[in-house]
Amino acid sequence: MPRNKPLILITNDDGVYAPGIRALIETIKPLGDILVIAPDKPQSGMGHAITINSTLRIKKIHEETGYAEYSCSGTPVDCVKIAVNKLLPRKPDLCLSGINHGSNSSINVIYSGTMSAAVEGCIESIPSIGFSLCDISVEADFGASKKIAYSVAKRILEHGLPADVCLNVNIPNIEYEKLNGIKICRQAKASWEEELDERKDPSGQSYFWLTGVFKNYDHGADTDEWALANQYVSIVPVHIDFTAHHTIPYLKNIDIKL
Amino acid sequence: MPRNKPLILITNDDGVYAPGIRALIETIKPLGDILVIAPDKPQSGMGHAITINSTLRIKKIHEETGYAEYSCSGTPVDCVKIAVNKLLPRKPDLCLSGINHGSNSSINVIYSGTMSAAVEGCIESIPSIGFSLCDISVEADFGASKKIAYSVAKRILEHGLPADVCLNVNIPNIEYEKLNGIKICRQAKASWEEELDERKDPSGQSYFWLTGVFKNYDHGADTDEWALANQYVSIVPVHIDFTAHHTIPYLKNIDIKL
Repeated sequence: MPRNKPLILITNDDGVYAPGIRALIETIKPLGDILVIAPDKPQSGMGHAITINSTLRIKKIHEETGYAEYSCSGTPVDCVKIAVNKLLPRKPDLCLSGINHGSNSSINVIYSGTMSAAVEGCIESIPSIGFSLCDISVEADFGASKKIAYSVAKRILEHGLPADVCLNVNIPNIEYEKLNGIKICRQAKASWEEELDERKDPSGQSYFWLTGVFKNYDHGADTDEWALANQYVSIVPVHIDFTAHHTIPYLKNIDIKL
Repeated sequence: MPRNKPLILITNDDGVYAPGIRALIETIKPLGDILVIAPDKPQSGMGHAITINSTLRIKKIHEETGYAEYSCSGTPVDCVKIAVNKLLPRKPDLCLSGINHGSNSSINVIYSGTMSAAVEGCIESIPSIGFSLCDISVEADFGASKKIAYSVAKRILEHGLPADVCLNVNIPNIEYEKLNGIKICRQAKASWEEELDERKDPSGQSYFWLTGVFKNYDHGADTDEWALANQYVSIVPVHIDFTAHHTIPYLKNIDIKL
């Protein structure tokens, strides 16, 4: 891959054959040389999991000039680590993850394999962006998302990102013409109210499905949830220093002793 | 479980039979009524993974007055969700995770199942603490860690924690008498330099182990890495708003358009 074109890493968490990553590849291809490595099966909800107690398999699926594609038995974060360590000729200019089938706004950033791949890219000092469409359907319409992913990726290739920051881009599930624009937001304060759906297996033993209801407690007009509800694309800058700096004086003051 | 005693949830990522959680249970038992739910197998490196594409099993292992213990087929975060939704009579006063066999300082907070369980407790508005001993050995000596976990848990039961903040407590692998104290720190800037250890299976196909070397780029005396290297217990307050607020003006300024 020649040095004069941008080198772009693409991954996701829905698996290498998901329509969302196919849409992302198609729209990003004109921007540079592309390396795709994505999980060989759906890995939604994997968060920042890495494979350390088991082995990994990598399979080359396709190669042509300026484009290569691999599947991997691991998690989205594994994919980024493998790309950086083994597959890429140099540090890429951009790491893109998605387009996810389903929202990763607000607190979902923490559960999301899509965003964890972008966060891992950020840890590796690569400008990184996760894209998610607010439609979990496998038949989701990625028409608007493709245009947005192209615009955002192009702009970040030109301008870069602040150190230790990646972007969480969420796209409302509406037609492109109905979008009101793009808003830079903060993460809304929200959580999931879990429900355990209890069932019986054929031998009468209980098993459970984890489900839940998303609860947004934060209706600030500067939040991602507000933007999405008002037909804006939301972009939240996400950082990798998790320290709650503002609480350090309080904690020093309560004087926890050995 | 009567209301007058603190109700304490305990989990981990090394599995319910790991010596680290046994040490934590033993030292915390005098502080309140205890519910333990932990993975039925090691779940290190699971990050904030949740089980949404598969089913969950829960098994009661032990019960006595003021104490109950369960194993779960899921991740550390699943354990917290199941405890809050299904097993606990009310919101607990404290959620403790660990004691992990191995450090979760610095960037390891993001890969750590131990810390992800504490972060999930925090998302559920429970004062939450993850404990890790800087010794990955199964025969690690948890003597000092038990005293520290007791002191920190007791202090936080008395004083509470700021909203949306949990604690990442790391303990150097030295005798209690040699500790210099406890330091409230920020997360050091560090990352892993990955190495993929390639091997051949019996049929000649490649497979890989993900390994790596920890690289600390940040030698500030206010960091957790500095504290640990200088025989202090490190406590980093960790928050769940991942927004890089300081970068919002820059991003607004580069004017990303549809």
